[in-house]
Amino acid sequence: MAVETAATRTAVDDGAVDLGPAVALSCRECGERVPLGPVFACQTCFGPLEAAYELPGGDAESAARLRARIEAGPRSIWRYAPLLPVPADVASAPNLNPGFTRLHRADRLAAELGVTGELHVKDDSGNPTHSFKDRVVAIAVEAARAFGFTTLSCSSTGNLAGAVGAAAARAGLRSCVFIPHDLEHAKVVMAAVYGGDVVGIEGTYDDVNRFCSELIGDPAGEGWGFTNVNLRPYYAEGSKTLAYEICEQLGWRLPDNIVIPVASGSQLTKIDKGLKELIAAGLVEERPYKIFGAQAAGCSPVSRAFKDGHDVVRPVRPDTVAKSLAIGNPADGPYVLDIARRTGGAVEDVTDAEVVDAVKLLARTEGVFAETAGGVTFGVLAKLVADGRIDPAGTTVAINTGDGLKTLDAVAPTTGPSAIIRPTLDSFREAGLAS
Amino acid sequence: MAVETAATRTAVDDGAVDLGPAVALSCRECGERVPLGPVFACQTCFGPLEAAYELPGGDAESAARLRARIEAGPRSIWRYAPLLPVPADVASAPNLNPGFTRLHRADRLAAELGVTGELHVKDDSGNPTHSFKDRVVAIAVEAARAFGFTTLSCSSTGNLAGAVGAAAARAGLRSCVFIPHDLEHAKVVMAAVYGGDVVGIEGTYDDVNRFCSELIGDPAGEGWGFTNVNLRPYYAEGSKTLAYEICEQLGWRLPDNIVIPVASGSQLTKIDKGLKELIAAGLVEERPYKIFGAQAAGCSPVSRAFKDGHDVVRPVRPDTVAKSLAIGNPADGPYVLDIARRTGGAVEDVTDAEVVDAVKLLARTEGVFAETAGGVTFGVLAKLVADGRIDPAGTTVAINTGDGLKTLDAVAPTTGPSAIIRPTLDSFREAGLAS
Ligand SMILES: [Zn+2]
Ligand SMILES: [Zn+2]
Repeated sequence: MAVETAATRTAVDDGAVDLGPAVALSCRECGERVPLGPVFACQTCFGPLEAAYELPGGDAESAARLRARIEAGPRSIWRYAPLLPVPADVASAPNLNPGFTRLHRADRLAAELGVTGELHVKDDSGNPTHSFKDRVVAIAVEAARAFGFTTLSCSSTGNLAGAVGAAAARAGLRSCVFIPHDLEHAKVVMAAVYGGDVVGIEGTYDDVNRFCSELIGDPAGEGWGFTNVNLRPYYAEGSKTLAYEICEQLGWRLPDNIVIPVASGSQLTKIDKGLKELIAAGLVEERPYKIFGAQAAGCSPVSRAFKDGHDVVRPVRPDTVAKSLAIGNPADGPYVLDIARRTGGAVEDVTDAEVVDAVKLLARTEGVFAETAGGVTFGVLAKLVADGRIDPAGTTVAINTGDGLKTLDAVAPTTGPSAIIRPTLDSFREAGLAS
Repeated sequence: MAVETAATRTAVDDGAVDLGPAVALSCRECGERVPLGPVFACQTCFGPLEAAYELPGGDAESAARLRARIEAGPRSIWRYAPLLPVPADVASAPNLNPGFTRLHRADRLAAELGVTGELHVKDDSGNPTHSFKDRVVAIAVEAARAFGFTTLSCSSTGNLAGAVGAAAARAGLRSCVFIPHDLEHAKVVMAAVYGGDVVGIEGTYDDVNRFCSELIGDPAGEGWGFTNVNLRPYYAEGSKTLAYEICEQLGWRLPDNIVIPVASGSQLTKIDKGLKELIAAGLVEERPYKIFGAQAAGCSPVSRAFKDGHDVVRPVRPDTVAKSLAIGNPADGPYVLDIARRTGGAVEDVTDAEVVDAVKLLARTEGVFAETAGGVTFGVLAKLVADGRIDPAGTTVAINTGDGLKTLDAVAPTTGPSAIIRPTLDSFREAGLAS
């Protein structure tokens, strides 16, 4: 594997790879450690590798110091650099400074759903390319720089392609991204507008993903950093910042419930990891929290396994309006099941009609126009509150991971002008909309 | 005028209108002062009314106190509440917390344009509905609350309609917005998705605007706050926050040059007002700055007047891909001319082809996907640097006021996948994109 060799050289021979507090990769299954490099699977057991850190201790003094450092930091994910696999001076290199998106207290939505406690919307559409993917890609760019890659790549259901295109453009890297050929128009244009190459693949996302894994072992992909494949152990860590921000924005406090969309499952597992790190670092007080995963009925392998009481996830062929969640063979599915069960949460799914209804409900009550993936999350939130699996009196956070402008077609058929009139008062009065 | 009567009562009879440091409205032409209320034209000379303040003094101590207060404030426009017509507790009422968007140092774009000094992109697409309109609407919502309006309305070229729909939804107000019937699809859907009424008008934006002025004097519009008509003196002040943020993000420093798109001209005039306030408050050191206005050739009445040396602006019928700037009869055009001339700036225009090229240039170099209005701004920036009217050695800020996702059609015909392939290495190699 050409890429691994190059990277191992960088990481080991001169010891120059500086990714801040990340000191190694470790296997999530067997715990084996390997040096930092663009590798993603354990050579002993084929388990997934993830970043391992030397993090500050959790005593009161360390916690106060870390908290002060974070609060004095930049208004982006880089405020959490001490907890991420990035060099300490990360904010000085050109990047899109994602994160620190708005957390809206959602009283009007709460009233409609019957939530009596605090309900919050974490709105990640405020990121540079309007999805949470800017978080993970920003971390991957740092890894790509560290390992000397000059082309940034990915397999994508759409949002990631745009995020990679934008981040690569700003960092001065070439990009070449791979998407299913039948993605939403807006996502295809957005992926291509940054001037990198966009390759449409005749197949599903899972076909695209398999193809990228092949490409990594081939000379055709030599020198390429695939954000969500060979850079995945770094990339995935970016989702921890959602956990950090939610807790900081709640006043350094854990919520009772978090509802998170599940595509590969990586985001959910990393949010759990982030929460545990905050507890270990003494930044939040330890207390029970429940993590809930949300899927679309048309691509619900993890929800299905949760309901059936299985530990393994059986792949499906996706068919849903929530294309950014259309991963039929989710790599982190088993970890999602474990976290949902361990924390007392659940994994649930909603139909495409419920997804569209939830997009409109969130827009109508809180002025947040979510992508269909957000509709999945808020649809599942509504379902879980309605059937009592989310305690309505608790503090609940639900994440909108993307932007309604990218999935316009889902709401467009039922969303338009109330009337078309001539510019006269008579014409307006006839429309029946007057005061 | 029913609305004015109601408002005058609120403002005068019980003296209960609390809009923070704003103490009155004053006529920009004759200086006449009237109490705070939903009025927009001077009854003496018909000049435009604007908010008048009692602001902190500019001595060193006051300046240090104000600066500390701002820096400790929320990460939104509300950090500048002491300089805005809003109550001090504004951040506690439900709103979308716009502002404090990213300011990107743009070295790659600078290199392509031949800028040798600092070039910065102020990217307002990070606002809640992805345009700068969220700033002005948030202020208008406070005024609407203060004056007891229950319906929020506007005439809009698109972005404002979405911003009003979203802000009204979140604030629990009814909304009814008016747009030209032939707007971009994305903007129409976005305006309507928040559940308010959207009325398409058969005519140009200027027809829509005239209609709204009629509606304000009619019972059909009674109790309605039109953000950019009868609430305009408040609404317009929101644009000052762009000036505040740019200077704060530059380290409390004035730039040498600012390039700003011109539709009605309100944004440009208020940015100038904001800069002058910062100087008066002692928050930045006084030094010369130049303000440049940017228009599309297909709607360039202010640019035309600037070039012809006129003080008045002759209305035009717009025909440009930059629909959010398509105001043929710009209310603040004469003030724009005055500011451009007084500061040593200019007003310039670019063709639709140059607009599209500039959108792509900004995306390719900095990873920022701008609306066509942003293309106008960056196209004009390129032109002004090329012909020496912007000093390439200075510190220059150009504003992207909107989001490329809302004007996809401008770039879509020339932006798409590099290739469509089968998921095989052979098929990929044939496409000629391999490493
Ligand atoms: Zn292992
Ligand atoms: Zn007057």
